[in-house]
Amino acid sequence: MKVSFPLILVNFKTYMESLGQKGLELAKAAERVSYETGVCIAVAPQTPDLFRLTSSVGIPVFSQHVDPDEPGAHTGSVTPESLKEAGVSGTILNHSERRLRIDVIEEAVRRCSSLGLLTCVCANTSLSGRAVASFSPEMVAVEPPELIGSGISVSKARPEVVGDTVRLIREVSRGVHVLCGAGITSGEDVSAAVKLGAEGVLVASGVVKANNPIKALLDLAEHSVQR
Amino acid sequence: MKVSFPLILVNFKTYMESLGQKGLELAKAAERVSYETGVCIAVAPQTPDLFRLTSSVGIPVFSQHVDPDEPGAHTGSVTPESLKEAGVSGTILNHSERRLRIDVIEEAVRRCSSLGLLTCVCANTSLSGRAVASFSPEMVAVEPPELIGSGISVSKARPEVVGDTVRLIREVSRGVHVLCGAGITSGEDVSAAVKLGAEGVLVASGVVKANNPIKALLDLAEHSVQR
Amino acid sequence: MKVSFPLILVNFKTYMESLGQKGLELAKAAERVSYETGVCIAVAPQTPDLFRLTSSVGIPVFSQHVDPDEPGAHTGSVTPESLKEAGVSGTILNHSERRLRIDVIEEAVRRCSSLGLLTCVCANTSLSGRAVASFSPEMVAVEPPELIGSGISVSKARPEVVGDTVRLIREVSRGVHVLCGAGITSGEDVSAAVKLGAEGVLVASGVVKANNPIKALLDLAEHSVQR
Amino acid sequence: MKVSFPLILVNFKTYMESLGQKGLELAKAAERVSYETGVCIAVAPQTPDLFRLTSSVGIPVFSQHVDPDEPGAHTGSVTPESLKEAGVSGTILNHSERRLRIDVIEEAVRRCSSLGLLTCVCANTSLSGRAVASFSPEMVAVEPPELIGSGISVSKARPEVVGDTVRLIREVSRGVHVLCGAGITSGEDVSAAVKLGAEGVLVASGVVKANNPIKALLDLAEHSVQR
Repeated sequence: MKVSFPLILVNFKTYMESLGQKGLELAKAAERVSYETGVCIAVAPQTPDLFRLTSSVGIPVFSQHVDPDEPGAHTGSVTPESLKEAGVSGTILNHSERRLRIDVIEEAVRRCSSLGLLTCVCANTSLSGRAVASFSPEMVAVEPPELIGSGISVSKARPEVVGDTVRLIREVSRGVHVLCGAGITSGEDVSAAVKLGAEGVLVASGVVKANNPIKALLDLAEHSVQR
Repeated sequence: MKVSFPLILVNFKTYMESLGQKGLELAKAAERVSYETGVCIAVAPQTPDLFRLTSSVGIPVFSQHVDPDEPGAHTGSVTPESLKEAGVSGTILNHSERRLRIDVIEEAVRRCSSLGLLTCVCANTSLSGRAVASFSPEMVAVEPPELIGSGISVSKARPEVVGDTVRLIREVSRGVHVLCGAGITSGEDVSAAVKLGAEGVLVASGVVKANNPIKALLDLAEHSVQR
Repeated sequence: MKVSFPLILVNFKTYMESLGQKGLELAKAAERVSYETGVCIAVAPQTPDLFRLTSSVGIPVFSQHVDPDEPGAHTGSVTPESLKEAGVSGTILNHSERRLRIDVIEEAVRRCSSLGLLTCVCANTSLSGRAVASFSPEMVAVEPPELIGSGISVSKARPEVVGDTVRLIREVSRGVHVLCGAGITSGEDVSAAVKLGAEGVLVASGVVKANNPIKALLDLAEHSVQR
Repeated sequence: MKVSFPLILVNFKTYMESLGQKGLELAKAAERVSYETGVCIAVAPQTPDLFRLTSSVGIPVFSQHVDPDEPGAHTGSVTPESLKEAGVSGTILNHSERRLRIDVIEEAVRRCSSLGLLTCVCANTSLSGRAVASFSPEMVAVEPPELIGSGISVSKARPEVVGDTVRLIREVSRGVHVLCGAGITSGEDVSAAVKLGAEGVLVASGVVKANNPIKALLDLAEHSVQR
């Protein structure tokens, strides 16, 4: 369940196509493609599905969000401890559909790190990407919100966003892996991202809503290694 | 997994004592007491534990929170659909540790209701209790925040809050069940609540942090039926 | 600066047409129409303009929002005390563009009331209108969000929302005045609202963006008294 | 009304001692000390007092917060345009009592900058200070929350926080001025801050609640220039 790069992180969002039993089947498809290609694929299901997936697949499972609250009287919070206990490998943070306060991001990265949970912090701009890299998460994923779900990939439509983020983050940190996302649907999009310096992609509807998710994942995985 | 009244709803919050495997054991203890006494006991674990508990116990499992977002692009949200799929019976809403916007409460009750999920909406005052009763949730739980976790029970320290809530809610609705919570630890607290017209209690640390949770639950259950 | 009913409450929102000096001119126009017609017209400018308007016009000035924080260490909050000191008569709360937590609404109404500030709590549905009426604000304004700024008036397109709100609120309170808003632009819209039992209207772009605000206000005022 | 460094920025918070007429008197005291000492002193009153102060004093007036919303339908928001119109010089952002989402900080800095409004972004840690410096605000103010209002100054109790922030921000930006705050009450606290590389201080209760605010401001101002 170790995460390696290049990484394809599949965000299940709250789509019906990736919920419950269907989510489990999608995770198994991702597992199969990961084993066949040797490329690391991680899946991020809805929170109530986390345990169901970690119990059944051997690839890394991520949460879509975490609250940095301590154990105690925090009704409704999803704590890092609860993710750890559920066998989760890490979490997405600050996705454009779930933006966070800057102090909450810092605290969440710190709390996750202390428990051995990986963090992938999203950013809508390259400057914002550099900003969150200050907190030393394992990954920063840059995603221009206007391209999310558009089918027009960031790596082809706005290559400078990816390139700038890679460059700016290198200025403050060597250890942070840069991913990119928004509109990624094909292997070509992944190739373009990798050429720009990204070490992986965040993908959602491009896989979840694909007619043939296995084929879509194979295409992404095969193009994630630069030749 | 049908909910009946009087109801003892055990909120696991984010305590370590009720997380993961320990939470499963606590849920099994609650199940045993429920079967022995015939009193309905429901448990509300952390979100990643929902599936683990619904797969293993026969008593109702509640979520501590739900987001009324529709299926789709809502990263990090816990949707009613995801609760339904996980086999959950209902959800707490607007707990004092997770207060909600009034329009979100209305929408969450409506969305849950359409999927057959029960809602227990918390309120910090009797007026606020009447307010949320407008949306016709199955339950309203009044909890003065200053008594939560105090060990001083609302039913004994502030009986007028419970009585007023019951009376005010009867003015606008016949179908809403009134629970009370905050500081409930003993059977006496439950007896006092029932005498004031409450049809159950919301309890957390009084059970979760008890030396002997089974004994604590037995005490609560035995006093929840008025004689 | 006493508020009387029927009331026309003009929400300046953050339009450029109602900002600063232009806002002052619009407030003076409202004052003139109010004096000429005898109908109470109140204006709700942006927060930094409150003092400028209360210093210069004799009609009631409302805030668009208030935070129920106490005096003290609450950087960035707009407290009831600061509104009182600025000579403001009351405040809008829970507008669909600034929805609030239910406990915050209750606390804000209570804090304002203790300082003699009037509150007009907005609601997006009739049930939500009844809910907030529980807190005994002076006014509840029902506004279906989908009609706000549409030019299609709630009183003509969705008369049942206005009628239901009036009826539901009468069940829990005699003292709360019901206003309606969303899409109000003409005297006819106001007549329709008054016939449905509303005691006034909340209006924004219909006045602020009118070619001739004085004429628009005159039309609204003249139709606000039922004949 | 030009801001220069060293800068003493006095945050009036929502204290009664700095509200309305009293706030105006405090601003005039600050003006007098600024003129006498030649040290730039800016004041940040509650939002409804902004216009009252800009109309009456010649020193820079700051807002305590701004919402980056565009002009339009944003009831209750305090827009950059409304601050500009009120004659305000700049704004505090992300104070520990009003933390913001990271994307909101970036957008607020961008919007203010386009209108010629200065921004002073607060940060609770040195890493967070470097993070917000990415957005090129004029100032970053580091304030450990636990010392705010404590009377124990950051510059003496936690000098490494100030030093680290200065150093980390220099790595990403030359143009950002670093201030520090929390517990600042005396000239000694300011001297210590300046020695650590800070170009000014953020102060609140140390001035607002001083027995003699003029004396307190004089002490701060005289020690703000390194000798």
